[in-house]
Amino acid sequence: MLRNDFYTPEVQGDYRLHGLGDFELEEGGVIPDLQLAYATYGELNEAKDNAILIPTWFSGTHQTWEQVYIGAGRALDPSRWFIVSINQIGNGLSTSPHNTDGPVAMSRFPMVTVGDDVRAQEQLVRELFGIERLALVVGASMGAQQTYEWAVRFPSKVLRAAPIAGTAQITPHDVLFTQALMDAITSDPGFAGGEYASNADVDAGLRRHAGIWCVMGLTTTFWKTEFWRGIQVGDTTFDSREDFVTNFVEAVYTAMDPDALVVMGRKWQRGDVARHTGGDLAAALGRITAKTFVMPIDTDMFFPPQDCADEQALVPGSELRVLPSICGHWALFGWEQTYLDAVDTALRELLDTPV
Amino acid sequence: MLRNDFYTPEVQGDYRLHGLGDFELEEGGVIPDLQLAYATYGELNEAKDNAILIPTWFSGTHQTWEQVYIGAGRALDPSRWFIVSINQIGNGLSTSPHNTDGPVAMSRFPMVTVGDDVRAQEQLVRELFGIERLALVVGASMGAQQTYEWAVRFPSKVLRAAPIAGTAQITPHDVLFTQALMDAITSDPGFAGGEYASNADVDAGLRRHAGIWCVMGLTTTFWKTEFWRGIQVGDTTFDSREDFVTNFVEAVYTAMDPDALVVMGRKWQRGDVARHTGGDLAAALGRITAKTFVMPIDTDMFFPPQDCADEQALVPGSELRVLPSICGHWALFGWEQTYLDAVDTALRELLDTPV
Repeated sequence: MLRNDFYTPEVQGDYRLHGLGDFELEEGGVIPDLQLAYATYGELNEAKDNAILIPTWFSGTHQTWEQVYIGAGRALDPSRWFIVSINQIGNGLSTSPHNTDGPVAMSRFPMVTVGDDVRAQEQLVRELFGIERLALVVGASMGAQQTYEWAVRFPSKVLRAAPIAGTAQITPHDVLFTQALMDAITSDPGFAGGEYASNADVDAGLRRHAGIWCVMGLTTTFWKTEFWRGIQVGDTTFDSREDFVTNFVEAVYTAMDPDALVVMGRKWQRGDVARHTGGDLAAALGRITAKTFVMPIDTDMFFPPQDCADEQALVPGSELRVLPSICGHWALFGWEQTYLDAVDTALRELLDTPV
Repeated sequence: MLRNDFYTPEVQGDYRLHGLGDFELEEGGVIPDLQLAYATYGELNEAKDNAILIPTWFSGTHQTWEQVYIGAGRALDPSRWFIVSINQIGNGLSTSPHNTDGPVAMSRFPMVTVGDDVRAQEQLVRELFGIERLALVVGASMGAQQTYEWAVRFPSKVLRAAPIAGTAQITPHDVLFTQALMDAITSDPGFAGGEYASNADVDAGLRRHAGIWCVMGLTTTFWKTEFWRGIQVGDTTFDSREDFVTNFVEAVYTAMDPDALVVMGRKWQRGDVARHTGGDLAAALGRITAKTFVMPIDTDMFFPPQDCADEQALVPGSELRVLPSICGHWALFGWEQTYLDAVDTALRELLDTPV
């Protein structure tokens, strides 16, 4: 095991672990004693019909959801809903290459799929809370992949679904994008085939990884308008583009575990609900019975609205709600009140829709 | 000097060299005996008023213009116009790190700016052909940077200007994009600070560079529709995405000289006509007297139409002509007849406009 303070409760906020035992994976192999890191907000009611599940995005944790999307007076209000946010396998909090010993440590970590995550999440909410049906699954980016997977794999368990800024089936463009992200890391000699002694050994590769995110995660308008001047992270503000790149984007990614990012990148590349239907996307999305709002971000450069709309058209009874932002994909960080209001408006309407 | 067959006439088609003598650079330093590689099409008339100048884009040469944009019956018809296409400094054909010895070889190549290129081009057309006024300057991408530089620096010499898919002032997003491109190359241990023995030593870095181009140069729609199935390069067609990536994108970039790409990348980052006006972009673009058509590509991910339109609004008497494509920036390769027709229609109208 490698020590990495970034994944501690001191940095990420409180979370708990739930052990699922030895967990068999779709593409072969087993994760011994799989631990999922999760956090809950609110109380499960007696009927157990007020549960909302939130999976996490690439490199993300439950914490951003807690800070940006959940709260009193918000659509995701813990006074009304019992919200469970579960960190995806390999994200650094749940069982991941750096925080386990033995047969799946570091470069030996097996290939994990979005389907594995969703099966594990289903087991967790059933075992821990006895939840058989979810009022809503909502996730963004890779969380949208998991949201679609939930709705296709367990139609009777998902009453409503809100995939934000993501697709049910990986696009070829996203395969190339994620490959460029991973190549930036794995090409660093310090990566040593995934057997580095510290994430600091991969500092240069992680910075290049961060550099590609600056280009694809944020739009030309974000940079041109110096939107970063209005961003505050804790007590920190930024007084130049270089300051923002170095002390926000690079600082975050260099704190992360390289193997974790690679595990998530490979998982992202394989996200495809059509695995259930012999490659027939329409058939897979046709299985969804959840009331579904498909919510792309209008300026997203790698999950553009058109790709999301193409899938939405295949989901029975679904609706398209395009979220406004000048930031691109990283609108997800919630820097714009107009964006947050649009998310809340859509989620409120979805949650108020009888199913 | 390193041998690199990619830059020979056998690969690039015929070109000539013109020596400008020792050439002083804007940011300091001198290129001894600067050679510009150029090609001409058509005949200069007696009045010398039918000359069109075409600068080249990042990693490009005169050849693509020759094959894709110039021809009988096209807007750029050599039976009517005398067309001079000049390869930018450092592109591998004109004086470049790998094809020179002595004080500016390899990693010692100095910083070159778009302004240096335009001054050198002006000297070439004056010395060789006695051209004092150009009927048109047309260039794309970094060629658009040079087109704007021509129109701002030499207003009396440029009657018409057509910057395609590029900007007069580098955007912050493009600084980050070009940095990611260069970092992919320079981080390769084989790059050896620019002192590799062969471009093959930097093969891995050049492939990562190509991988980023796949993400930013081509759109999600290009990949999703498998547009590459219809692309023919010489006698070669492609039967899978991997085939296209490996045998077109990677094949082209791995054949190039790494130092050349870095010289052009740094030049791209510094492209800014406001260098003439103390940073005042409006003042710089206000100097333009050329009749100007600003021609962005509608799906371009790093020179998006809005950025180009923002500048067009500052060019007196200019017009915006958005070019249609599903390919993004690499529409420039001319794979779509609708795109080529739109280019020709705009250039014909521009060339027919009395000035």
